[in-house]
Amino acid sequence: MHDVIARIEPVDFRMGQRAQAYLDTLTKPPGSLGRLEALAVSLCQIGDTLAPRVDPPGVIVFAADHGVAEEGVSAFPQEVTAQMVANFARGGAAINAFARQVGARMEVVDVGVAGVVRVPGVIDAKVRAGTRNFLHEDAMTEAEALQAMRAGALAVERARAAGCHSVILGEMGIANTTASSAVLAALLNHPVAALVGAGTGIARERLAHKIAVIERALAARGCGREPARVLAALGGLELAAMVGGFLAAAAHRLPAVVDGFIASVAALVAVRLCPAARAYLVFGHRSAEPGHAHALEALEAIPLLALDMRLGEGSGAALAFPLLRAACAMLRDMATFDAAGVAR
Amino acid sequence: MHDVIARIEPVDFRMGQRAQAYLDTLTKPPGSLGRLEALAVSLCQIGDTLAPRVDPPGVIVFAADHGVAEEGVSAFPQEVTAQMVANFARGGAAINAFARQVGARMEVVDVGVAGVVRVPGVIDAKVRAGTRNFLHEDAMTEAEALQAMRAGALAVERARAAGCHSVILGEMGIANTTASSAVLAALLNHPVAALVGAGTGIARERLAHKIAVIERALAARGCGREPARVLAALGGLELAAMVGGFLAAAAHRLPAVVDGFIASVAALVAVRLCPAARAYLVFGHRSAEPGHAHALEALEAIPLLALDMRLGEGSGAALAFPLLRAACAMLRDMATFDAAGVAR
Repeated sequence: MHDVIARIEPVDFRMGQRAQAYLDTLTKPPGSLGRLEALAVSLCQIGDTLAPRVDPPGVIVFAADHGVAEEGVSAFPQEVTAQMVANFARGGAAINAFARQVGARMEVVDVGVAGVVRVPGVIDAKVRAGTRNFLHEDAMTEAEALQAMRAGALAVERARAAGCHSVILGEMGIANTTASSAVLAALLNHPVAALVGAGTGIARERLAHKIAVIERALAARGCGREPARVLAALGGLELAAMVGGFLAAAAHRLPAVVDGFIASVAALVAVRLCPAARAYLVFGHRSAEPGHAHALEALEAIPLLALDMRLGEGSGAALAFPLLRAACAMLRDMATFDAAGVAR
Repeated sequence: MHDVIARIEPVDFRMGQRAQAYLDTLTKPPGSLGRLEALAVSLCQIGDTLAPRVDPPGVIVFAADHGVAEEGVSAFPQEVTAQMVANFARGGAAINAFARQVGARMEVVDVGVAGVVRVPGVIDAKVRAGTRNFLHEDAMTEAEALQAMRAGALAVERARAAGCHSVILGEMGIANTTASSAVLAALLNHPVAALVGAGTGIARERLAHKIAVIERALAARGCGREPARVLAALGGLELAAMVGGFLAAAAHRLPAVVDGFIASVAALVAVRLCPAARAYLVFGHRSAEPGHAHALEALEAIPLLALDMRLGEGSGAALAFPLLRAACAMLRDMATFDAAGVAR
């Protein structure tokens, strides 16, 4: 991934200043469109233009399984990962409904599903059939994590080659809130209990078990805070793919819409690997998962939506996407005070 | 408006229960789409169907002037109302950009602009050339307020006749945060200073003046809390039109998306006139204007977006609209666990 990271340029904050100055000439009280104006400024910086575009978006859902699922940390059995991949391919999941609403190109990438996925339309980029159980050994070798990151970067490059002007990265993987919580706890050196939530909906006693599993794993792996090492020891193949995807989006100056908790942990790994990548991220929604607030704080990010959602798949990012489109329309379509003959 | 109010039926909460039960069969953990699920339930109740539709929306912007503007309560001169009406008609305002993004039918209705509006495409429903200065006399007679409400109801009926399945009501009127704050203070019997904000952007000393003007007007008008009386004494023609519009939307079982502070005050008047109308309202965004939180609390409403916006025009409601569309898509397009062969 060194070649991808080497291509990531810091955004030019002077372009942001030019964008804000232009927004202040449009027929509205200065600043009255609040965070939509901040979003427009960000999109101008990302594209290095006063006329950014985000359409069409490319939705990419990365799927993989987790060895730690065998510890009983999820409300759903592991085979649901493969079943949901088939559901994505047939168009029946929430992300399909929302991706269609925003006219997105959609791709489903198997980077490590445990079962055999025999569904037309799923990209096979399987690194291995699920990670190892990180309670007993590292989830991935660093080479495996790198291969998954590369698969994520390639998916973003396919979206770009197909004409997409932004990307929305999502994930599916039973037990991946457990892996994400472990990665976040290691990166932030934060107590596990404050970060871990119900995921897709586990009961109270299983939550305590989930916390204990992560705490034991953190002690056993002793992986420190170095992001590539933490990702391999505790992460997941779909997390690694998202890390690679976020880095590739930044390298190609594409805005990447970050979904909820799991995507934000991947974004944090990407930003720890390359701080300049942060400015290419737009945060879609605030998840109900408690660890999300900590990941967002570490990224200094305030998401666009806060609808108490906790699904993943890229669903919250896809729901936020029309706001990016509206920010572009504001820049492109509004009249200035002078052109409209409106007194300031 | 008695005929309109008489047509408003309470929504059937059993339809909401059926909708939630159906949502729980879809391929996502139960409840994991958070407030989008609550929105879907609400749309099912409004349409009395498990397959609600909201497209296309009708955006209606009501414009009028305020006699109290002569007290220097706004950051902008009164002629800006007419200038912005021309800007709406030519398509250069924020609401135009956002209405186009959501494929809305758009209508601009002059219910009381002070200046002469000679722009093609603006509906002339002028009741009078601006309200009277409520510091010295009632802003409107009750007959004038009723005529403006009727104009609002007719605009919603035009949108419905043109095939719209939802409405987004917006407003433009220099000094209308002052009128709205006065109406809200009277309805809630709440201290003025806690409700009043900078509107489109007045400085600190002018804010103190704005508060003093409203306090003197409340004492002088002594209009009590009866909604029709408060609206006439302290309101505006565009506020009254929105009240009529919200009531007509409820009468026709159309979801009405409420914009920010001013629209929410109009919604509160509508709900005080007919409590059953509340269930037909969807709240689009939380304004930066301080009084909005109090209006929302009185309406027991939590808006979909909170982006620190304070523009009006229906802009926040139009930005929230894609979420209504996504809620309908979730109900219509997602597979059930059984159909997709996904384990629960």
